[in-house]
Amino acid sequence: MDDNNETPPFEILEAEELFHGKWLSAKQVFFRKRGSPTESPHVWQIPYRSTRSAGSVVDGVSVIAILKKRKGEDGNDCSKSIILVKQYRIPIMAYSIEFPSGLVDVGETPLEAAHRELKEETGYTASRLLRSTTGIQNLDPGLTNDSVNVFVFEIDGDSECNRNVVQKLDETESIDVLIIPLSDLMEKLRHFSEVGYQVEASLYTFALGLVLNGML
Amino acid sequence: MDDNNETPPFEILEAEELFHGKWLSAKQVFFRKRGSPTESPHVWQIPYRSTRSAGSVVDGVSVIAILKKRKGEDGNDCSKSIILVKQYRIPIMAYSIEFPSGLVDVGETPLEAAHRELKEETGYTASRLLRSTTGIQNLDPGLTNDSVNVFVFEIDGDSECNRNVVQKLDETESIDVLIIPLSDLMEKLRHFSEVGYQVEASLYTFALGLVLNGML
Repeated sequence: MDDNNETPPFEILEAEELFHGKWLSAKQVFFRKRGSPTESPHVWQIPYRSTRSAGSVVDGVSVIAILKKRKGEDGNDCSKSIILVKQYRIPIMAYSIEFPSGLVDVGETPLEAAHRELKEETGYTASRLLRSTTGIQNLDPGLTNDSVNVFVFEIDGDSECNRNVVQKLDETESIDVLIIPLSDLMEKLRHFSEVGYQVEASLYTFALGLVLNGML
Repeated sequence: MDDNNETPPFEILEAEELFHGKWLSAKQVFFRKRGSPTESPHVWQIPYRSTRSAGSVVDGVSVIAILKKRKGEDGNDCSKSIILVKQYRIPIMAYSIEFPSGLVDVGETPLEAAHRELKEETGYTASRLLRSTTGIQNLDPGLTNDSVNVFVFEIDGDSECNRNVVQKLDETESIDVLIIPLSDLMEKLRHFSEVGYQVEASLYTFALGLVLNGML
């Protein structure tokens, strides 16, 4: 069960391109259970990003950005918040609440992309890498191979570079920065949902992990 | 900032269909910043599932399934594990480690779909709903509108219906059930990544939430 060299349970009979565009391509794959030569082939229609950099195993990065300050806005010592982004997303035609994120540029490592995207989208500079994932994290493996690596950064909110932060956005981006106390995260996500914003699944499950830790 | 009636920052100029298939469709949308009539239009190419049930606001469900037993396999009292699935996914041509999940069928509520998918994919019957999300959770809002609701179920591992469980899989599914002690989750995900399996992003961020709770 733990051997990645195990033989796939399906054999691919044929793959044909459905569409090829600058940002998106799609193909359909005909397959059947291995060792079942008389079984009728099944088909899976799959969209792909056309933009993954050569040499990169993932398309993008997601950043879990933990902002620490000696004195919080609320006057409490040692405040811990998470930095999120609210942006209008054309694919869903709605405002979305997400981790800062973005695609890996040509020649960049995922870690470099994570630092750059955090800075561009939120203005903040990461001071420490707390955790990073390894391998490939797929966003939606039943539909597409679009994938990320996830980085957890600590941001020193008291450092000079993190005062009066300024975003640097593309023309196709419209992003508000949200600073949410970690202890309020689940409640805030529920509120955002209730007023009609859409919350990214991986952000919601992160919040569930935070609150369930104490409950389970 | 908290008003979902706020005007979108972009205006849509035109949308054209790129492809329409049984399971997948795609369109491209031309848009520009609202109130910038001389700005050159931007384009976004977007894949959609063709399969969302009429009346459903989401495509599918993800199930965070917590298995509790009075006596665990390791002999410890009150063992708490998470039930995951390992399946070969055609879109990524690799084995994927995920929450049990699936599409909402016609006439089903997301909650009903969550119970059904848990049972079909893992054989287990949920005994209690611990948490559910509201609104729409998008899996990959920079690419597509593919979306889920997330349900957290408790599964009583000592109940009669959860002994000798049996999966009920489609022909196009090849799924192994993984029972992982909650306290080992992050370590196991790292191991799966290291041996070449791909871990779904929302599962990885859930695990990060669990472990970061104590660290932050």
